[in-house]
Amino acid sequence: MEIKESKFDWVPGGVTAASGFSAGTAFAAIKQVDKRDVAVVHSVVPAAAAGVFTLNKVKAAPVLVTMRNLSTGTAQAVVVNSGNANACNGEQGLRDAQAMAAVTAEVLGIPAEAVLVASTGVIGRKMPMGKILPGIRAAAGQVAPENGPLAAQAIMTTDTFPKEAAVRLELGGKQVTIGAMAKGSGMIHPNMATMLCFITTDAAVAPACLKQALKYAADRSFNLVTVDGDTSTNDMAVILANGRAGNGVIREEDSDYVNFREALTEVCASLARDIARDGEGATKLIIVEVLGAATEKDARQAAKAVAGSSLVKAAVFGRDANWGRIICAAGYSGADFDPEKVDIFLGDEQVARDGGSIDFSEERALEILKKDTVKITLNLNSGDCRATAWGCDLSYDYIKINADYRT
Amino acid sequence: MEIKESKFDWVPGGVTAASGFSAGTAFAAIKQVDKRDVAVVHSVVPAAAAGVFTLNKVKAAPVLVTMRNLSTGTAQAVVVNSGNANACNGEQGLRDAQAMAAVTAEVLGIPAEAVLVASTGVIGRKMPMGKILPGIRAAAGQVAPENGPLAAQAIMTTDTFPKEAAVRLELGGKQVTIGAMAKGSGMIHPNMATMLCFITTDAAVAPACLKQALKYAADRSFNLVTVDGDTSTNDMAVILANGRAGNGVIREEDSDYVNFREALTEVCASLARDIARDGEGATKLIIVEVLGAATEKDARQAAKAVAGSSLVKAAVFGRDANWGRIICAAGYSGADFDPEKVDIFLGDEQVARDGGSIDFSEERALEILKKDTVKITLNLNSGDCRATAWGCDLSYDYIKINADYRT
Repeated sequence: MEIKESKFDWVPGGVTAASGFSAGTAFAAIKQVDKRDVAVVHSVVPAAAAGVFTLNKVKAAPVLVTMRNLSTGTAQAVVVNSGNANACNGEQGLRDAQAMAAVTAEVLGIPAEAVLVASTGVIGRKMPMGKILPGIRAAAGQVAPENGPLAAQAIMTTDTFPKEAAVRLELGGKQVTIGAMAKGSGMIHPNMATMLCFITTDAAVAPACLKQALKYAADRSFNLVTVDGDTSTNDMAVILANGRAGNGVIREEDSDYVNFREALTEVCASLARDIARDGEGATKLIIVEVLGAATEKDARQAAKAVAGSSLVKAAVFGRDANWGRIICAAGYSGADFDPEKVDIFLGDEQVARDGGSIDFSEERALEILKKDTVKITLNLNSGDCRATAWGCDLSYDYIKINADYRT
Repeated sequence: MEIKESKFDWVPGGVTAASGFSAGTAFAAIKQVDKRDVAVVHSVVPAAAAGVFTLNKVKAAPVLVTMRNLSTGTAQAVVVNSGNANACNGEQGLRDAQAMAAVTAEVLGIPAEAVLVASTGVIGRKMPMGKILPGIRAAAGQVAPENGPLAAQAIMTTDTFPKEAAVRLELGGKQVTIGAMAKGSGMIHPNMATMLCFITTDAAVAPACLKQALKYAADRSFNLVTVDGDTSTNDMAVILANGRAGNGVIREEDSDYVNFREALTEVCASLARDIARDGEGATKLIIVEVLGAATEKDARQAAKAVAGSSLVKAAVFGRDANWGRIICAAGYSGADFDPEKVDIFLGDEQVARDGGSIDFSEERALEILKKDTVKITLNLNSGDCRATAWGCDLSYDYIKINADYRT
């Protein structure tokens, strides 16, 4: 979590920062023996719940089970495993995902339909249920409010650091907390959904408003992250709102709703940024800001295309101020703009004006490109809409991680 | 050029294989002193002409000039330079592209509007016209029928081998030749257009039919090649048909048209395959064949997504029989299919059935993945449409070539 300017108070605690949420984890040895790989998150009372999911035609079994269990608009727990995606496992996969929910429910004393299920890991391998179910029993049996950070570790795959965020704000005179954890790393190019992200809040929000706020936030955070252009079979972001803060239930688009949505969007954006920074093999976070777009959609398309371009990513890795690749990517993004009006900046150094070259300091550009975070700004000068997308550079290590070289 | 089963006779000569075409080249030292970098192709008589172009919003100046000069449906020459894309150069870029046409026309004694212009190389650098115009004079001054292969060298950038193809067929009792040259390598993900490709034929074909045939062929060849997902600002495929073969002019969709279109498609597909094999950093050609699709569009979408997936490309580089990444890419391609019906093959080894895992020989799969060419077949079992896409693996050398590392 990197905290930037914000009107909200950022607090520790991650997915259990909000009142009434606890978590438990276990070492189930699904893929590695020395890594936590099962997490359970529990709310003391049933919570309003909503989710957004991968648009991939190939949806993993846990995605299908969670979509169905969310149809009531409520949930009380989440169970997650890393090390196996439970995707492309047919009927057996569905049965296994349901069994994960059933065992979690049994230990926590809640209905199986109140449990959301998520998995991440390799596709097309049968789930080692003989390891997973005991792991779930252990994790669900020791849920506690201080275990949010351990849960964030348990859902990691090739992530190099856990991803958490939480903010505190006031709604209707009550202090409300929104906390979350996420995992990212590879196969990251969510489409109207996300990698895995679990958000909890003690705010009281009606399910329909909760879903709307989550969709809004995801479109401005997870859906603007790209690591490698591959949309996973397992993407999911879910939110549980248990109402323990005691604010009046948010049921319409009033000022409390807007405030809540804004805080939720900041939490999601913070995690999105962490996911990009921790992309497989990444040496740098790339922040692409598009200004002056005619519509927000144009801004988002252009920003995501630049952040996702293999050539831009390779140029940033190589510290090459190659603005031609940047404008080229915006050009094929589908965004509508006049190429001859585009200004491009690396950090605060302008490198192109009116869609063409200008003299700029190569040394200044190199200094900017040497930093851990590289900000690319495109002003389309065609309106007043804007968007930010997050990506990472393309390094030798991306190949190393993903080319499981065999001889 | 790799020749596979074909009903046509494959012949040498490339872009000057057809009767009445000649070419000239020059060393203009645009980027390197020791490389041919200007080519001129000339038809002894005005030819019917058509083109397909990049859909990138950012179109290079030569693309705009060629689009305009093709509005008459005729042309008589093509001038091409490598080493500078003449993209993002504003009004000056347009004037430079026009000057290239004017000088070519002057030397060849034809109108400037009869000259098509193409450029490839770095974006956003002013054209060194003091080197280019003398180069064009030299190239246009020595055009000869035997120079097709030299022209194919002159248009190369990071290509490691020249790309040419030519076939001979009979139309209306006359022998007709279709020849072509292309360049590819990086920034290759054409959208309804192509990288640079120049096709000549002595067939007599009316401009409207020629355009229709070219669009058909490009959709089944260049538009199914991907190297890195980046659609260039300079993509263009143009065809000149000078009628010197003496066949009756093809004016409608008769059997001669279909025969011509089929031969043209084979020529384009042969070049598309060469472009994929020679993708930047590629160690392997990946051929993705999708069978059993409900529509040809579904087949093309799925095939191109698999060929373009960074994770599939990295897996092939690493010789990893990771079919999960293959079905995942088909799943986000936009193609409509039932994931539980999909069969996947590496070469002739089946690695997944009904969208799920099966036992297969890891040793056989490894042998297949060690070859220069890796064929991936997906049978969607949902219809009888099919498509083939071409890509390449993602290796350390792609990063090396595109990360111009600065310290």
